[in-house]
Amino acid sequence: MSKISGVLETSLYVSSLELSTTFYQDIMKFRRLVMDQRFCALSVSDRQVLLLFKQGASLQAMTIAGGVIPPHDGHGELHVAFAIDPGELGSWEQHLNQSGVPIESRVEWERGGHSLYFRDPDRHLVELVTPGCWAIY
Amino acid sequence: MSKISGVLETSLYVSSLELSTTFYQDIMKFRRLVMDQRFCALSVSDRQVLLLFKQGASLQAMTIAGGVIPPHDGHGELHVAFAIDPGELGSWEQHLNQSGVPIESRVEWERGGHSLYFRDPDRHLVELVTPGCWAIY
Repeated sequence: MSKISGVLETSLYVSSLELSTTFYQDIMKFRRLVMDQRFCALSVSDRQVLLLFKQGASLQAMTIAGGVIPPHDGHGELHVAFAIDPGELGSWEQHLNQSGVPIESRVEWERGGHSLYFRDPDRHLVELVTPGCWAIY
Repeated sequence: MSKISGVLETSLYVSSLELSTTFYQDIMKFRRLVMDQRFCALSVSDRQVLLLFKQGASLQAMTIAGGVIPPHDGHGELHVAFAIDPGELGSWEQHLNQSGVPIESRVEWERGGHSLYFRDPDRHLVELVTPGCWAIY
């Protein structure tokens, strides 16, 4: 059995798919892959997808052609962090300012990385991090 | 401003850090990076971290040497998906069976990928996916 190769899908549960999709497309620059009334899938990178689920819309198992997707749902102000390249912190900060997204906090990590924290439309805690946060990044 | 390079941190909120850490270490084979009474960070791959937060333990902003980590928290049965290599589905299924983890559902995607769905100790919906699910994977 080989190891898992990575996180493919990270999920957030949102009150308005339209507002959140706009935020992650326009501010975060993710590319929309699929969207319906239940969810929106956005491409973060080559092999990573951010899933925005309308709150309460996935509480029932869903039968599709290839099988059954079991129920799931979530609430709260979840945390998700995205990696940015070293030296990109300033331009992201400027972009967030120009986009009217308040920066809630900044952290400098012991290993030298820097983080910016801000909120998406549901107040999920979004972080941008440069390398030097974890032992592996 | 360059694009975001990927999801660095995906978070789940759990009732028992010990139980969940054991699950993700022993069953999913992730490596523990850091653990305290508030959270556990596990390495999923080279540049991806799964964060397990004790429910309710991050509701206050936390001041550390390098700044302030804003509050966050979550509830529910969240969904997270991990990528596995093609041809690894059978061995993962066997491993889950031998580990006493019931497989709740199987899906075959239009693009040819396959998924297994099962639950972690908090009933978060965990998925293993082979390539052929999204246009980008």
